[in-house]
Amino acid sequence: GLPRLDASPAAEPCDAPLQWEGKWVLYDHSTGRNRRAAVSYDGQNQRIRVLEQHKKHAPCQRYKQVMVRFFEYIYLYQSQVMFQIDQKTKECSKVALTEAWDPFDIPTNSTFEDQYFIGGPGDNVEVQEWSDRKPARQHETWIGIYTLKDCYPVQETYTKNSTVTTSTRFHSLQLGISDPKVFTPPSTCQASRPERMAEFDC
Amino acid sequence: GLPRLDASPAAEPCDAPLQWEGKWVLYDHSTGRNRRAAVSYDGQNQRIRVLEQHKKHAPCQRYKQVMVRFFEYIYLYQSQVMFQIDQKTKECSKVALTEAWDPFDIPTNSTFEDQYFIGGPGDNVEVQEWSDRKPARQHETWIGIYTLKDCYPVQETYTKNSTVTTSTRFHSLQLGISDPKVFTPPSTCQASRPERMAEFDC
Repeated sequence: GLPRLDASPAAEPCDAPLQWEGKWVLYDHSTGRNRRAAVSYDGQNQRIRVLEQHKKHAPCQRYKQVMVRFFEYIYLYQSQVMFQIDQKTKECSKVALTEAWDPFDIPTNSTFEDQYFIGGPGDNVEVQEWSDRKPARQHETWIGIYTLKDCYPVQETYTKNSTVTTSTRFHSLQLGISDPKVFTPPSTCQASRPERMAEFDC
Repeated sequence: GLPRLDASPAAEPCDAPLQWEGKWVLYDHSTGRNRRAAVSYDGQNQRIRVLEQHKKHAPCQRYKQVMVRFFEYIYLYQSQVMFQIDQKTKECSKVALTEAWDPFDIPTNSTFEDQYFIGGPGDNVEVQEWSDRKPARQHETWIGIYTLKDCYPVQETYTKNSTVTTSTRFHSLQLGISDPKVFTPPSTCQASRPERMAEFDC
């Protein structure tokens, strides 16, 4: 469609899909690092599986080859546990989750910010931007950008405090979960360690 | 189109359009603030005009109504000056530019990062991601996301150091400059002050 220049406020946040597979790029502003992962999102059962993507020729792979580990993460919020699995050795840690389940959707009481097209003329996707800003009361600490048509996530940005902000960009999304077995931890997690394994930030 | 799951490296960066109008949301991670503006970009003549967008009901408008100022900025890189104009009073400052012209495009020596679809199935835009990362030598300090078809900017992220990072998201883009007069400073800039006016970050 043709870009509109004025935003007309939406009455209600749309309903984001409950189950999808795709990828994300998680940008941690405190380190300036981008972490890429394949993601299976199951909002129905409050679980997420994150498979870190290897980045070829990263500096750490060359200089610290032995030390580099890539992890798979299985978050099971209904059981309040997270499994962290070394992709190579299958070594497994089981860690208690302290944060509550926070789905990738637009909360009902969100504030409409804007509606617009991302991309060029005739080659774009229309999105809505929502936040937790409260007019005349509170600056936003969360901004969520979702497609207008089917309410797929495009980007979420959290500002926890001045030093901790993260942006998650979503892409290559497909509806549904093709293989529910990805949420089942491997057998090595039967005898799992209770400590989270160190992630090397090289 | 249907999302592809594997990225096939592009041979060459595409050529971004030299002139466009649209909007951006500039996110400053150190303050957590989003600054929205209407933008006229003229890469041909190395100039940019930025018109800050008023955000209704922001906390600062309620509590510091008298102090809030919105500005227009005219960057003329060939003359190495920037004009800052108070949108209400037309008060004008003329400030020397110290940074070199940095166009919104993908430098020739950039590193291909990924190619993917933003949005949902059947409602998306295909983009390419490039960075200044040097394999096995240097982490990225710049990431640029541009549409595959016509090479319009989607997002640029700069990491200057651990505390200074900015993300600029582009939207509602149209090819060309509809009114070249926006790059001409108003008459109040004839007798302009040499100091930049304070921007209130409320």
